[in-house]
Amino acid sequence: MLLTIDLASDQPIYLQIRNGVVEGIANGKLKDGDMLPPVRMLASELGVNLHTVNKAYKMLKLGGFVKMVRNRGTVISLGGSGRDSKDFMEAATETLRNIVSEAITRSIGREQLIGIINRLYHETGGDRL
Amino acid sequence: MLLTIDLASDQPIYLQIRNGVVEGIANGKLKDGDMLPPVRMLASELGVNLHTVNKAYKMLKLGGFVKMVRNRGTVISLGGSGRDSKDFMEAATETLRNIVSEAITRSIGREQLIGIINRLYHETGGDRL
Repeated sequence: MLLTIDLASDQPIYLQIRNGVVEGIANGKLKDGDMLPPVRMLASELGVNLHTVNKAYKMLKLGGFVKMVRNRGTVISLGGSGRDSKDFMEAATETLRNIVSEAITRSIGREQLIGIINRLYHETGGDRL
Repeated sequence: MLLTIDLASDQPIYLQIRNGVVEGIANGKLKDGDMLPPVRMLASELGVNLHTVNKAYKMLKLGGFVKMVRNRGTVISLGGSGRDSKDFMEAATETLRNIVSEAITRSIGREQLIGIINRLYHETGGDRL
């Protein structure tokens, strides 16, 4: 199973599903054209509500990671994902601003954050980038 | 006024308030011992619910940024903030993991993210770190 969710996490489950799929695409476990499990099946496997999985799939569609194909279901499709990298970069910058602010109040230097980013690129198979 | 909030943002208002205060501490506009406005006053200034401001102040207390002082109100106090930097680093790493994953799917290299972090440290006055 590609996805693991943590029911005790602060992060909503639909976001965990959405982020798990994005991570799967990043590390190459999910490739263009791969089919995601039907909503009903994934909901049952994870023990969560149908609407939760539906919400995650809708977010993936909005982000340009999947498309809905008649008779096939939800399919990884990165064709259009470049289109809103500007939105992604803006949102990422806002999130990074909050992390950097809090880091500064804790006297945590940029090297620590940069070290984490380098490690995550490595772990997620993004070393070429 | 230290805080500006964006009612149209995806980010909940209590988080915007919380993050605004943390940013104020990071950039030195708020210093140890400074008093935050009373909940009722800030709620009125921002045009938001009392509970929203209360929630933000409670989060700041949990994060070790403020303490509640009898007869004075909510006061910036960083004495205990080092205590849960481990929690902060764990949460920050999870958030960075999501950003890095999505960046990789968009062929955005680490240099771009690292460049943003360097810029944010500079802007927020954390160049010494």
